[in-house]
Amino acid sequence: MSKWIYFFEDGSSKDKDLLGGKGANLAEMTNLGLPVPPGFTITTKSCMNFLDKDSFFEESLKQDILKAIKKLEKKTSKSFTDSSSLLLVSVRSGAASSMPGMMDTILNLGLNDTRVHSFATLTNISFAYDCYHRLLQMFGDVVYGINKDKFTNLTQILEKRLNKKKQAFSEDEQKLLIDSYKKLFFENNVEFPQDPVEQLFEAIKAVFKSWNNQRAKVYRELHHIPHHLGTAVNIQSMVFGNSGNKSGTGVVFTRNPATGENKLFGEFLINAQGEDVVAGIRTPEPIQSLQTILPDTYKSFIEYAEILEQHYKDMQDIEFTIENGQLFILQTRNGKRTAKAALKITLDLVAENSISRQEALLRISPTTIDQLIHPVFDEKELTQATLLAKGLPASPGAASGEIVFTAEKAKEYQLLGKKVILVRQETSPEDIEGMIVSEAIVTSRGGMTSHAAVVARGMGTCCITGCEALVVHEESKTIICGNTRLVEGDVISVDGSSGCIYLGEIPTIVVENDQNLQTLLSWADENAQLLVRANAETIADLQTAMEFGATGIGLSRTEHMFFGEERVLEMRRLILAENEQEFEFALNKLLTFQQEDFYHMFKAVQDKPMVIRLLDPPMHEFFPHDTNEINALAEQLNRYPSDVSKQIEKLQETNPMLGHRGCRLGITEPRIYQMQVKAIFNSAIRLAKEGLSVCPEVMVPLVSEKNELKNVKDFLIETIEQTFKEHQVDPFPYEIGTMIELPRACIIADQLAENADFFSFGTNDLTQMTFGFSRDDIGKFINSYKEKEIMVQDPFQTLDKAGVGELIKLAVSKARHQKKNMMIGICGEVGGDPNSIPFFQNIGIDYVSCSPYRIPAARLAVAQANLKS
Amino acid sequence: MSKWIYFFEDGSSKDKDLLGGKGANLAEMTNLGLPVPPGFTITTKSCMNFLDKDSFFEESLKQDILKAIKKLEKKTSKSFTDSSSLLLVSVRSGAASSMPGMMDTILNLGLNDTRVHSFATLTNISFAYDCYHRLLQMFGDVVYGINKDKFTNLTQILEKRLNKKKQAFSEDEQKLLIDSYKKLFFENNVEFPQDPVEQLFEAIKAVFKSWNNQRAKVYRELHHIPHHLGTAVNIQSMVFGNSGNKSGTGVVFTRNPATGENKLFGEFLINAQGEDVVAGIRTPEPIQSLQTILPDTYKSFIEYAEILEQHYKDMQDIEFTIENGQLFILQTRNGKRTAKAALKITLDLVAENSISRQEALLRISPTTIDQLIHPVFDEKELTQATLLAKGLPASPGAASGEIVFTAEKAKEYQLLGKKVILVRQETSPEDIEGMIVSEAIVTSRGGMTSHAAVVARGMGTCCITGCEALVVHEESKTIICGNTRLVEGDVISVDGSSGCIYLGEIPTIVVENDQNLQTLLSWADENAQLLVRANAETIADLQTAMEFGATGIGLSRTEHMFFGEERVLEMRRLILAENEQEFEFALNKLLTFQQEDFYHMFKAVQDKPMVIRLLDPPMHEFFPHDTNEINALAEQLNRYPSDVSKQIEKLQETNPMLGHRGCRLGITEPRIYQMQVKAIFNSAIRLAKEGLSVCPEVMVPLVSEKNELKNVKDFLIETIEQTFKEHQVDPFPYEIGTMIELPRACIIADQLAENADFFSFGTNDLTQMTFGFSRDDIGKFINSYKEKEIMVQDPFQTLDKAGVGELIKLAVSKARHQKKNMMIGICGEVGGDPNSIPFFQNIGIDYVSCSPYRIPAARLAVAQANLKS
Repeated sequence: MSKWIYFFEDGSSKDKDLLGGKGANLAEMTNLGLPVPPGFTITTKSCMNFLDKDSFFEESLKQDILKAIKKLEKKTSKSFTDSSSLLLVSVRSGAASSMPGMMDTILNLGLNDTRVHSFATLTNISFAYDCYHRLLQMFGDVVYGINKDKFTNLTQILEKRLNKKKQAFSEDEQKLLIDSYKKLFFENNVEFPQDPVEQLFEAIKAVFKSWNNQRAKVYRELHHIPHHLGTAVNIQSMVFGNSGNKSGTGVVFTRNPATGENKLFGEFLINAQGEDVVAGIRTPEPIQSLQTILPDTYKSFIEYAEILEQHYKDMQDIEFTIENGQLFILQTRNGKRTAKAALKITLDLVAENSISRQEALLRISPTTIDQLIHPVFDEKELTQATLLAKGLPASPGAASGEIVFTAEKAKEYQLLGKKVILVRQETSPEDIEGMIVSEAIVTSRGGMTSHAAVVARGMGTCCITGCEALVVHEESKTIICGNTRLVEGDVISVDGSSGCIYLGEIPTIVVENDQNLQTLLSWADENAQLLVRANAETIADLQTAMEFGATGIGLSRTEHMFFGEERVLEMRRLILAENEQEFEFALNKLLTFQQEDFYHMFKAVQDKPMVIRLLDPPMHEFFPHDTNEINALAEQLNRYPSDVSKQIEKLQETNPMLGHRGCRLGITEPRIYQMQVKAIFNSAIRLAKEGLSVCPEVMVPLVSEKNELKNVKDFLIETIEQTFKEHQVDPFPYEIGTMIELPRACIIADQLAENADFFSFGTNDLTQMTFGFSRDDIGKFINSYKEKEIMVQDPFQTLDKAGVGELIKLAVSKARHQKKNMMIGICGEVGGDPNSIPFFQNIGIDYVSCSPYRIPAARLAVAQANLKS
Repeated sequence: MSKWIYFFEDGSSKDKDLLGGKGANLAEMTNLGLPVPPGFTITTKSCMNFLDKDSFFEESLKQDILKAIKKLEKKTSKSFTDSSSLLLVSVRSGAASSMPGMMDTILNLGLNDTRVHSFATLTNISFAYDCYHRLLQMFGDVVYGINKDKFTNLTQILEKRLNKKKQAFSEDEQKLLIDSYKKLFFENNVEFPQDPVEQLFEAIKAVFKSWNNQRAKVYRELHHIPHHLGTAVNIQSMVFGNSGNKSGTGVVFTRNPATGENKLFGEFLINAQGEDVVAGIRTPEPIQSLQTILPDTYKSFIEYAEILEQHYKDMQDIEFTIENGQLFILQTRNGKRTAKAALKITLDLVAENSISRQEALLRISPTTIDQLIHPVFDEKELTQATLLAKGLPASPGAASGEIVFTAEKAKEYQLLGKKVILVRQETSPEDIEGMIVSEAIVTSRGGMTSHAAVVARGMGTCCITGCEALVVHEESKTIICGNTRLVEGDVISVDGSSGCIYLGEIPTIVVENDQNLQTLLSWADENAQLLVRANAETIADLQTAMEFGATGIGLSRTEHMFFGEERVLEMRRLILAENEQEFEFALNKLLTFQQEDFYHMFKAVQDKPMVIRLLDPPMHEFFPHDTNEINALAEQLNRYPSDVSKQIEKLQETNPMLGHRGCRLGITEPRIYQMQVKAIFNSAIRLAKEGLSVCPEVMVPLVSEKNELKNVKDFLIETIEQTFKEHQVDPFPYEIGTMIELPRACIIADQLAENADFFSFGTNDLTQMTFGFSRDDIGKFINSYKEKEIMVQDPFQTLDKAGVGELIKLAVSKARHQKKNMMIGICGEVGGDPNSIPFFQNIGIDYVSCSPYRIPAARLAVAQANLKS
């Protein structure tokens, strides 16, 4: 028989899959001797059994819960059924992976009309009834789906009628409120169960069900958490932070989650329950203030925090409650943190000899690295910017965008291609989809640990919370801030690192690499097997790539060399040439431009290798389609507009992606490729004379057949040899390789390897051809595919291992069989994707190549792939 | 040391690769004891060695040739050097595969100014000088590229000047002509060598070189003959058909090459050499006339013809020469024949117990079968047609087209999409490219064995030769025929089976399957393993498919059901629907149409299986793009034209081939597929009630991922089950399968097999994606690819075994691993290609499916694949 229920002392941190993160932690903390309120955990397996089949609860779980309650009564010497020494419990969800706020919680379970009176007698009327109100409200919301605000409204109505605050209600008046709450249940055709056991059963079932609510599903998709895991449910005896001024509740990080500073960082509220802190309704006090208010409690908190951090070897996020001066630890977990903090904490832990360098490398996620190189506002522009208000710097980064007030509007605007900033009084889990699409999030209430702050940091989205200067009217869609009035669509700029909000748009720049990042990445390089190159071609990008530590250039596209204003005219002249003379004239002009380009490109990368891809796009991409532009071109070329127009039309293709491009152009009109290699070697020879030896790596695109490669290679070599001769220099080494970006190229990779010095996989095109998807047209069905879970990951972002990956694997094995030590790289989009990199390491790729800003993350990812392999 | 030269008696028919077809035949005939003029063969290997390296001739071949000449002198008791008992030889090309007229020949080699005089003394002046003239003319043409006509002109000039025919020239006058010929050599900066040995050397080298002339290359490409084989050269002692009225030359087929009738068929010319027959300059007499003229010679010819046919077990095409009543067999080969004749001869040979049924199946090429089902003119239309003229029925079939007079014009018109008929006085090997693109070929001169006739039969192109009623003026591009004058671009109709030419266009229909074909195909079916299905969807095509013996329908496309005038309006209404009501209205209309369609389709195929593919093309294909049509549509739908126009624009895609089509449509808008299966099952249920059980096979197109198939399959099954319920009938068996047409589908074929009842490979799309070629755009580079020999075969016509074939093989093996007995077919273009079928047999495909007219050939091809495997 399966065991569905574990008391905290019977579990351990290893049982995370079964008990959930929270349950495993409660077990671990209990076993560490921390003051944890006793309780038990119902397993994740029970949840999935129940979600599969309702009857599981009745048939298998019910009796075990009743037994556990009996045991809990014994442990706490309290009772769940009679009215003396009341046992109240919390019912909390807790999945194996943290999903903060995504699922449901009910507190104060066990109260009813009778027991609340006894509870009031034992404590006080206001507290006891407040607990009961909360129970009714949460129960109504979680179990029956009655909107919480309706309860709040009823309270406000009664407060108004009685003209006093709830805290001042007499017991009869409290009962009046309870009655109105019950009436609300009744209006929804349900009844609040008076039997605590029945309350518990319903609450447990509701929490189970919350695994499948919409926002939880969206969260799981965003964080790639499988849907079949289920949540555990933790039943824990209640302690009350709202039982007077010697009581309270708080959330504390053992180190600063924004900066990483090794100093307690957190907040607490006196006379409050945990929900008050997280929801951000009241603005809490910093943890350090507790030292003054309750010095002994503070002291023991420090002690426990140290025990926890030492035990978990990581910064902890601790929830605690003080009941009449007695400290209870409710929860601890590895604290979420900013990228900057993550890096500092990890490096500090290495310095403190708490973890090794390898452990450090595995702890930082490549996404974190991405966040470190997020943009900040240009300082110069900032001096002239109009500061609107200042809030808490909840998540770093900088962004400008149009104000929206709801998650729906955020999504709507985003679909129109607009950049939005979500501004709210406070966010709640219902807002998650809107938060994902926003450039930045601003809330007028809440602290650094509020929902908005935690979620934004997790997503790496810039966020400011508690910006109380803003009066946010969500219904009328206006913000009043002093004399300024902003409406939906107005543009603001948000600095998540400083907490400043500015009017209008401000340009951003990227932060300098800080020393911690350099240190971590140097460790990464020491532990990596795959090399990281960059996809870059402009001088600026080549320089950025070098600064970010690229070991070379994996893909340098030459298209830009044809697209400058002067150049495109020559390219157009060449394509439309009516005679040899005109063609040669244009070709020579282009040669002059390009040999200068290559000279500076080679200089920018110095002795590092650079793969230069020959011209790839179809000819029609070089032409305008607008009548005025065509007329202008005709005049420049001294032609009739109608002739030019006809020629351009002839270049059109039904499926340009599958058309006359890549090496097909090279074969039908060899002189363009010949001009390109001539430009490359002219500049390489010039550099050689200046003392810089470069080994040009020329890449032929879109090869599907060995004869294509052979044909192009033959005439390239001829041109190269001729160029050496013309310059009267001794030939130096060079390489001619090919892009593998068509399924057929993968299948005949052995044949291609015969004629290639290197391979580079172009995963973008390869993915398009393998799936038969055009990236330009995929928009018409991809959303439907995601909704219907036909495609969970975008194959253009993360390698499709089963399809495209198999083809690549086959090609690598065929190529290596033919030419064992051939250099093989990945230069498509997924080359910089940390989720794809381990696959590339496993199949024996030599390097990945990605855009310059993705290099730091990729350097870490290749190290992690190696450490894990 | 290699042996470069073989005397005829030293070779055998097995040495075809080395000695060429002609050389091997001469050897074989010699060994059979036939009267073959003695000689020797220089091997194909020598040819390739020489073409690789000129010096091979000097270094390795020369001495061997000299030795062989010595031996030949001994054998013939004639001499090549002195002037008594003159040895003259012919030098003929002869490759392993017959390439009629493609390469060069020189006759009468060994004559010079001195020897011609001796020769004249031994025979007569007119004959001897005629031989010498011919030698000079052919030598000038073949060795030095001097146009033959220039020699003919010189003859005509001198005939005019002397006012008599060449035959009547005195020896001095003949010498005058020789001098003018020599002058022509001189004007071309060359000299005719007087030394017979030098003549021989130059002639041999020229014949070697002719392997690489343009028309030979084109011919090899057309007939898929590799370029690296080379030609052998046959040196044979001359016999003279032009040595008087007891001499002659002829070409005879042992059976009728047009009808297959078992009766000698051929022609001869008295006092002529072989070239006169082939070139068709004089119209020859039927072979039977020889019985009267030279009865003994005729008798021995009959004898030898029988020996040859018995030996080769096939109809022979025999060239012979009679020298003063003595018969010499110059050449024999399996005779080219019409498709009809090929079939009759083969079946007769089986009836005669000469060959087995299996041998018969292997003898007929599938192309022959194609020719048998070529169109003929509609008899009814013919009664009203205007007969222009009648010629020889040289190659069967019927076609209409515009008249052109040159091969260049034929190619030019064909590029414009026009159908052309090439009309010439006579054709020559230079015309080959123009003949390929013509619907029919008509010549005013020449017989059934003229160049035009032989080539047209080989290509299966309809052809009439010797139509002397036509006066063809090639320069002025006119035909005069009685009172009728025709010019370029005028339309005529040509019946190659009757020899009739009609004015204007005449509709064609397809011949009835004749009994011989039925017999052969029934043997084919008995010997086949692969089944042959048809790609068909219209009732007419389905019926044709059944008549041609399809075992089922492998691909029934449903697009046509949306494209009828009434239907397309509903489809457009559906796509542009502004509300549910409108959508449902259109959908119901379509359902009504389509269930009727399917009813008749099922009836047409009766109990045979039929795979129905659900809608495949992208939505925009259903819309007009012309403004007037859009306006009309807007009016029909009661919309603003600008709105309709905008909606249509939104449907446009950058790469429609890779866009929102196939199952992607099915997933984003399931109701269209649901309507389709509803229509299928409504009609299947109706037929079941009428007593015809059908097992619908529904095929989902463009699947790349198992979830796609799963998603579509789930909702299809739901609809199907609902349809059974609605009709209150017990469910009957049905299948849901998928098209494998994307590279990824091949790679994950095992996963797809889990969810599919059958597979069908769509090789057209699969080829496009595997190569990254769009069939619509390939025209921009494919010619260049063929020219540069990058791609020898069109992968859309013949399976690309190395690429696409490998993917299919992989997919079949994965699918069979998952589901051993799954039905797997090929429904793309290459499914009907005889060159691709053996591959499909080898990898374990169950059936191929092709267009109805390709079925008979495919039935033969699958039998051949099986017999050869």
